[in-house]
Amino acid sequence: MRLSRAFLPTLKETPAEAQIASHRLMLRAGMVRQTSAGIYAWLPLGWRVLQKVEQIVREEQDAAGAQEILMPTIQTADLWRQSGRYDAYGPEMLRLKDRHEREMLFGPTNEEMVTDLFKGYAKSYRDLPRNLYHIQWKFRDEVRPRFGVMRGREFLMKDAYSFDLDCTGAQKSYRQMFVAYLRTFARMGLKAIPMQADTGPIGGNLSHEFIILAETGESQVYLHKDLLEFDVLSRPVDYDGDLSPIVDFWTSRYAATDEKHDEAAWAQVPGESQVSARGIEVGHIFYFGTKYSAAMGLSVNGPEGKPVVPEMGSYGIGVSRLVGAIIEANHDEAGIRWPDAVAPFKVAVLNLKKGDSATDALSERLYAAFAPDAIYDDREDRAGVKFADADLMGYPWQVVIGPRGAAAGKVELKRRATGEREELSVEDAITRIKGA
Amino acid sequence: MRLSRAFLPTLKETPAEAQIASHRLMLRAGMVRQTSAGIYAWLPLGWRVLQKVEQIVREEQDAAGAQEILMPTIQTADLWRQSGRYDAYGPEMLRLKDRHEREMLFGPTNEEMVTDLFKGYAKSYRDLPRNLYHIQWKFRDEVRPRFGVMRGREFLMKDAYSFDLDCTGAQKSYRQMFVAYLRTFARMGLKAIPMQADTGPIGGNLSHEFIILAETGESQVYLHKDLLEFDVLSRPVDYDGDLSPIVDFWTSRYAATDEKHDEAAWAQVPGESQVSARGIEVGHIFYFGTKYSAAMGLSVNGPEGKPVVPEMGSYGIGVSRLVGAIIEANHDEAGIRWPDAVAPFKVAVLNLKKGDSATDALSERLYAAFAPDAIYDDREDRAGVKFADADLMGYPWQVVIGPRGAAAGKVELKRRATGEREELSVEDAITRIKGA
Repeated sequence: MRLSRAFLPTLKETPAEAQIASHRLMLRAGMVRQTSAGIYAWLPLGWRVLQKVEQIVREEQDAAGAQEILMPTIQTADLWRQSGRYDAYGPEMLRLKDRHEREMLFGPTNEEMVTDLFKGYAKSYRDLPRNLYHIQWKFRDEVRPRFGVMRGREFLMKDAYSFDLDCTGAQKSYRQMFVAYLRTFARMGLKAIPMQADTGPIGGNLSHEFIILAETGESQVYLHKDLLEFDVLSRPVDYDGDLSPIVDFWTSRYAATDEKHDEAAWAQVPGESQVSARGIEVGHIFYFGTKYSAAMGLSVNGPEGKPVVPEMGSYGIGVSRLVGAIIEANHDEAGIRWPDAVAPFKVAVLNLKKGDSATDALSERLYAAFAPDAIYDDREDRAGVKFADADLMGYPWQVVIGPRGAAAGKVELKRRATGEREELSVEDAITRIKGA
Repeated sequence: MRLSRAFLPTLKETPAEAQIASHRLMLRAGMVRQTSAGIYAWLPLGWRVLQKVEQIVREEQDAAGAQEILMPTIQTADLWRQSGRYDAYGPEMLRLKDRHEREMLFGPTNEEMVTDLFKGYAKSYRDLPRNLYHIQWKFRDEVRPRFGVMRGREFLMKDAYSFDLDCTGAQKSYRQMFVAYLRTFARMGLKAIPMQADTGPIGGNLSHEFIILAETGESQVYLHKDLLEFDVLSRPVDYDGDLSPIVDFWTSRYAATDEKHDEAAWAQVPGESQVSARGIEVGHIFYFGTKYSAAMGLSVNGPEGKPVVPEMGSYGIGVSRLVGAIIEANHDEAGIRWPDAVAPFKVAVLNLKKGDSATDALSERLYAAFAPDAIYDDREDRAGVKFADADLMGYPWQVVIGPRGAAAGKVELKRRATGEREELSVEDAITRIKGA
């Protein structure tokens, strides 16, 4: 993308309403703009990141055997009356009436709808297990939306729902999502730690939150250092195999949020292994048995010919929230430092002297070499502005082309994460970035 | 995807409420399920098609220089009061109030919001031209939703909005979208004909509908045969160049819907070139000048230092509607006949004797060769059921593996579009399909 033609509006001033780093940086870098309280439009830079995050989530759900569907945003109140949650949900549910005065709502989650959908087709134990997920916009009418996309009202969530014949099967599904979540966050360059959680209004008896560590995190967490050092992506996962060893590794070490913190258990962790840090919740998984299947009348013919009520779980990832959380974990004074896998563009080509035929030609050549995962700063602007914008927008690599370098066939390469700069031949710069 | 584990629920009976072919076939093939009147959940098979259609739309918008953003579904009533459309829109607009009693609505379209968004950033004529698009769910509260996804209430639309300095620029943007639309529909295997249209409630003075031809189409259309014979994809397009010759070709031949049909002009078309057919609207483009920019207070500093109110156009494609329209144009008694580019899977591997070690091994080998764009019918079911389901779901290629063929290293290949069948060696079958 050429910056001279792009819709990438940066802000010089920090908007007063933005209290946290990700909110400030997303506004300043022109990633999003608020259109109503807690409701955001995603501009091209932000939209690219959101799509990359979404795609990683999708690939890991697919790899774990979940199947993608798409449920609508608008649901009938009747569905929620069946589960008893219509009255229980409170003012966070956005309720509305259609032109025929039928009571509807903008879905805050989909347990009821997916159970009803599944009920329409599952007749036999042979139709189990299944895990269905979708990535769809939800609405929760927070009384005081804040922190930008971290706590918006309209937000993008991946929610998966598993259906199993029995508790053993449901626990296997739970472990599959547990492991898929570890991989999902690791691929985004995040350290995400599963921590035992209360099940809250969803109900059930087994639940983990996935918390990423960031200095600016919303809550205090306590964990064993082993968990930080484990390399999640170092070995392939067989989702049909026994995942207990992986889950056991994570659940046998101490990890707790403030709410669940247990001083006595914490004291058992050797001092040099105790890590206390700030954390941000980015995912939450639940096993809740037959709570919804029983309420909604879902049952299948079991292997012995008797009806069986499937055991269910649900598994959420805050996709739009993750964009903010990644920034909270990856920024400095100058701006965002995107992990490579979720950067809006991998490379920024900075032409320091637009209009000079040698720098123009070399810049075009480099831009072409990295396209389409590159942005070309071809604006007629000062070098300082270009450096500042590239740092703010946080592209992992910057290739800087000035007239002196262009004459000598050299460019400067900057790695945003470390700040390292190096002068290289054009060929070496291309090789270095493409190989990274 | 293995059918034995997939969530691909077919129906044996045709649902009584489905009046048109695409609606019947989408329900029978398990592509969608209605969750409320005119509101659908997309099941895995339908969701794959929707994603492929969406991706083609996206690629052609990007190629034409439009930039993708994502605006939210929920908008404030205030925005629509500025343009005067809040009261004008009528009961098709889904209106609601949030917990603070603020008037909101589920967006049926986005002229107001995008103009307000653009106003926040565009200061100078150098910030023009820009074309911003998004692919987002919309809601129009139809009084009698019907025809499945062809006329649903919650539907996926691609809407683009162009901003130009003057009328000449706006016409250039209009032509870019005109050509991008021709290519978009052609890539989906559709014959789409632009026809002059009324501008309706959007306003403005130039507008074309894009109509695809299908025997089961909703309206009568009249056109010159040249338009059907033109091969849109045969040459590359330079969107920065002059697109007038392409647009002139299409607009100088007769093409009209029933409403605009002009018997006198039609009589000028030589009889052998007259084609009258049934059509379905799948896209609509508008040039409406300063209608929204003036109403919403958008202006930029012009080249001479005076304020200029940008000229705008908007450009819509019914993405979810297209899935139905493609089926209307591509089906027979047995089911859907997907064009290759939008098929949910390119190949179906039919194992006629599950449990036989030779057919199982050969089926697995073929499935692996075509994955991930293949579905494997590994169910323990009769051959007749497998043939019928594959025809119904409409995969472009079927590879049939029976025990006799497996012993001889042969498979049967069926091309869904033509019904042609051929016995081939395994290697030839793989080569044939991969090369297609």
